[in-house]
Amino acid sequence: MSQNDFADWMRQVQARTETALADVLPDPNLAPARLHEAMRYAVLGGGKRVRPLLVHAAGQLVGAPSAHLDHAACAVELIHAYSLVHDDMPCMDDDILRRGKPTVHVEYDEATALLVGDALQTLAFQVLADNPVSATPAGQIAMIRQLATASGSRGMAGGQAIDLAAVGKQLSREELEFMHVHKTGALIRASVLLGAQAGTPPDEADLQRLDRYAKLIGLLFQVVDDILDAEADTATLGKTAGKDADNDKPTYVSLIGLDEAKRLSREMLAEAHEALAPLGERAARLRALADYIVHRPF
Amino acid sequence: MSQNDFADWMRQVQARTETALADVLPDPNLAPARLHEAMRYAVLGGGKRVRPLLVHAAGQLVGAPSAHLDHAACAVELIHAYSLVHDDMPCMDDDILRRGKPTVHVEYDEATALLVGDALQTLAFQVLADNPVSATPAGQIAMIRQLATASGSRGMAGGQAIDLAAVGKQLSREELEFMHVHKTGALIRASVLLGAQAGTPPDEADLQRLDRYAKLIGLLFQVVDDILDAEADTATLGKTAGKDADNDKPTYVSLIGLDEAKRLSREMLAEAHEALAPLGERAARLRALADYIVHRPF
Repeated sequence: MSQNDFADWMRQVQARTETALADVLPDPNLAPARLHEAMRYAVLGGGKRVRPLLVHAAGQLVGAPSAHLDHAACAVELIHAYSLVHDDMPCMDDDILRRGKPTVHVEYDEATALLVGDALQTLAFQVLADNPVSATPAGQIAMIRQLATASGSRGMAGGQAIDLAAVGKQLSREELEFMHVHKTGALIRASVLLGAQAGTPPDEADLQRLDRYAKLIGLLFQVVDDILDAEADTATLGKTAGKDADNDKPTYVSLIGLDEAKRLSREMLAEAHEALAPLGERAARLRALADYIVHRPF
Repeated sequence: MSQNDFADWMRQVQARTETALADVLPDPNLAPARLHEAMRYAVLGGGKRVRPLLVHAAGQLVGAPSAHLDHAACAVELIHAYSLVHDDMPCMDDDILRRGKPTVHVEYDEATALLVGDALQTLAFQVLADNPVSATPAGQIAMIRQLATASGSRGMAGGQAIDLAAVGKQLSREELEFMHVHKTGALIRASVLLGAQAGTPPDEADLQRLDRYAKLIGLLFQVVDDILDAEADTATLGKTAGKDADNDKPTYVSLIGLDEAKRLSREMLAEAHEALAPLGERAARLRALADYIVHRPF
């Protein structure tokens, strides 16, 4: 697969994800109109859609129908979007810029931001329950369970709590990893596993390979984020740069240094490729996505 | 059914709901411990458990297994608990007292309250996806869909948004009803319908009757809440009394007066009984619950 093919595929998935999200989000003309407008503001017209890309790449590996994947991708992206809206609020990271736009509580108000996040989370589960996303009802329930487990107190929300508790503290590398495995890793991993469950379920060995890949990618994503945050300026990043260091939050860069963080990202990328090796050409998109996560130009 | 039988049954359901909630809430010894402790603080040891009572009463009508009902009841109560935690936050109602205890953001902090609410919502869907709650996987998915629809922007969260927008405004009775149908009514209604789906599904006519009852009870609950809020003092209520009037929020009492609100509550109670009449003795618990909602001693 050439670079161009991959870039075309990415644009295609990003575009169909945008359409699918616009379809599942409530009509802004329906009451409560302001809430519905703010939900669309929070979700549409931005974002790299990394999680939907992972859903589609894993789904293609198991021959999943595109309609299944669109809905699974929406569900994961809605959870991601809700977490950003809440994470940006004054009582959390107090951020005013997201994807180059004012954050939801700045553009609207705090109460609306709170409700937008709440309603986006609900919508994620509604989308999985309302639409065909798997070959069987049991598979559909398993996907709902997977998304809930990845999002809750033992997954993403728990990671946020650990992150909060870590501000101003010196963490060990193990503690930092534990935080990121939950905060970012769980949902990235769920994206791959949801995609893989939307088609003919892979055998146990392949599922293990995908899971190893997914775990590596989840952590890799955060390491690269820390590198970008340390290196980039606000304009390129589309969000406030250097924020984590300013907030005295531990990052891979603050803990192990920029060079070592870069070495670590290369090492994890190689491991991710290794995990996929037995899957052959079917995993080409997942491989390309791993490369993209490391080399993304922002 | 005597008053005593009903009181015994209520205590029994409240006790088994407490046990079931304690079981599904994450172990406070697991990381992140503070979040898990705060989740338990928000949910356990308080509350009238009206929604679980409705789940069990409707479930008994269709011969649903108690284990199904316990999990359905937990899911509904977790959604209710999450909404209280977020609703009490400074950017919403800014309340410091709930069920006679400091609210979560007062006892812990705002960021923790935000995450507690988020994680409780996730847990509600996880409980429905993780446990047998219906005779079939399709029934289980229908229950997840029902809970999501009732909780989201076209249900409870939407009702909160309408409530926020109404502060300081003069609403018509229709607008006030629209707000409450969403804010409180949707989840009360879902409680009855989830219970009714946890056993042998009722025929369409009975389902319509239950739905009419559920809609009436949902609104009735709010009318009575407004009456209690206008009449009671803080100590009896276990939350800050007169708060809605102080906040310049429209209530049934402020809109139609105390006497008319009481007349309305009696009228709706009679209608609720009428809706259940064809269901005979099987609906005894639902009838008693309607009476309890109107005559609750607090």
